[in-house]
Amino acid sequence: MADVSELIERARLGQIGAIARLISLVERDSPQRRQVAAELAAHAGRAYVVGVTGAPGVGKSTTTSALIGAIRATGRSVGVLAVDPSSPFTGGAVLGDRIRMQSHSTDDRVFIRSLASRGQLGGITSGVPQALRVLDAAGYDVVLVETVGVGQAELDVASLADTTVVILAPGMGDAIQAAKAGILEIADIYVVNKADREGADVVARDLRQMQAKISGRKTGWEVPIVKTASATGQGIDELLTVIDRHRDWLTSSEELTERRRLRAASEIEAIALGEVRKRFASSTGPGRLYAAALEVTAGRLDPFAAADELLSALLAT
Amino acid sequence: MADVSELIERARLGQIGAIARLISLVERDSPQRRQVAAELAAHAGRAYVVGVTGAPGVGKSTTTSALIGAIRATGRSVGVLAVDPSSPFTGGAVLGDRIRMQSHSTDDRVFIRSLASRGQLGGITSGVPQALRVLDAAGYDVVLVETVGVGQAELDVASLADTTVVILAPGMGDAIQAAKAGILEIADIYVVNKADREGADVVARDLRQMQAKISGRKTGWEVPIVKTASATGQGIDELLTVIDRHRDWLTSSEELTERRRLRAASEIEAIALGEVRKRFASSTGPGRLYAAALEVTAGRLDPFAAADELLSALLAT
Repeated sequence: MADVSELIERARLGQIGAIARLISLVERDSPQRRQVAAELAAHAGRAYVVGVTGAPGVGKSTTTSALIGAIRATGRSVGVLAVDPSSPFTGGAVLGDRIRMQSHSTDDRVFIRSLASRGQLGGITSGVPQALRVLDAAGYDVVLVETVGVGQAELDVASLADTTVVILAPGMGDAIQAAKAGILEIADIYVVNKADREGADVVARDLRQMQAKISGRKTGWEVPIVKTASATGQGIDELLTVIDRHRDWLTSSEELTERRRLRAASEIEAIALGEVRKRFASSTGPGRLYAAALEVTAGRLDPFAAADELLSALLAT
Repeated sequence: MADVSELIERARLGQIGAIARLISLVERDSPQRRQVAAELAAHAGRAYVVGVTGAPGVGKSTTTSALIGAIRATGRSVGVLAVDPSSPFTGGAVLGDRIRMQSHSTDDRVFIRSLASRGQLGGITSGVPQALRVLDAAGYDVVLVETVGVGQAELDVASLADTTVVILAPGMGDAIQAAKAGILEIADIYVVNKADREGADVVARDLRQMQAKISGRKTGWEVPIVKTASATGQGIDELLTVIDRHRDWLTSSEELTERRRLRAASEIEAIALGEVRKRFASSTGPGRLYAAALEVTAGRLDPFAAADELLSALLAT
């Protein structure tokens, strides 16, 4: 059993093995998770977190990979967390993507890690914020969090990231699909990728039209549209410039502090709810829940009354 | 304010307006929600619930619509709950789909309703099980629950349905994509739709190969693959036959009772967790959570310790 304090010290010196080890400890509900979190607390808040999301097939991984290169070219270090079953990090991509990603694998100022995509309460796994803290404490200047852009996970990425980039492309990941999935609202920056293909201009035009209708969380920040062809690198430098501009805007408007507070609040709440869930299963007993479920299926009790009983039992412990 | 008991009485006589009204009451956290649930309890457990899921574009709505027709042809009544932002019920579909759906709109033994797709804790909205209870009490023989097949919602549909149908098609919704999204495991029946198109045989073959690797929740039920071309109605009667066969199998193996108990248990737990969440925001005060979040962002407290404080405050109330 590794000593947590020593691991953190080594991670802060940039030792990849220690960083990987710490993420493994916090990713799931390990016995040392709390200790790691407690000792990391003082080292938090330095990394800038960029969320990257979009439907499968829009070129999310290609864009992430190109962005890693662009950030490194400015001298900054990059951590990447992939929470996406279709990401090459997690093993689901075509060969080309893998090779592209591996071009960063010899750069020791780039750290890439995939995380399990299913959380305890649905949506993003609760390990992601903890893994973020590890990379933050380890001194990465920028952390990219890549999530698959459908369902709850990508809505949650906005609560993790300082800047959220939503990628679209002609086809399945177009603006209308994205609007339906509710992911337009969470964007700080739109990327229209595959801009060299037919239909990209239509996506950009649809986006602009829908933008007018969306009353998102943004105040004073006009969500820009950046056109890229990530496979060739086209538009990637501009994307990074826009990300940095958003960071400057967030910092000067104090919105950054506010976002991070909200992020911490939802993280705390998620941990507390997870704990309550564990207690439902232990102190009140799985037997009690199962017995209540029997009464409900038999039509002798309604689920709200059953939930009240479960809660009373919890509060009485 | 309508009288709940009277509404339930009218719903049980098949009055569409009363059914719709009751669903509106239970869909969200209305003051009468608990009363409705309490009075519905005794009338539950008669409807057979079929979950229909799959990626956008596989022809989910078309299949659902064709299935409605096939079920009606056997004399049974059908309720439909659409929890899918791309469903024609919820307004996102192309004209053809809408017209297809409207062909059932003059049949008073078909009831179609869309529900908000985002739940309080991510995944399926907590209103769905309640709306199911309304349709059950109203006497619909079969209730179809259609959810979009990506993210958490469609995994949750399996915990709502007696029989879960996963639809695939050549293209984006193929077997490999589905495996990545984790939706193969939840299937009781696979449908390969658009079977008249190129690539359908490949999807079926991939499915069979992956099936061998999947150790799902099924015991003793070999998940069949049904080929359909829902737009023309091809294969739909066979699909219904297979659904009925699965129902017979569930009933004879007592798996049906067990599934319904698990369903009730997760419903009770979700309600209880929602209540805890409300209490975090009220009795312990949003101020307390926000203050804890401040400490966390300042690096003076870790999120686990903050969650402990939040829980202690809850348990002390």
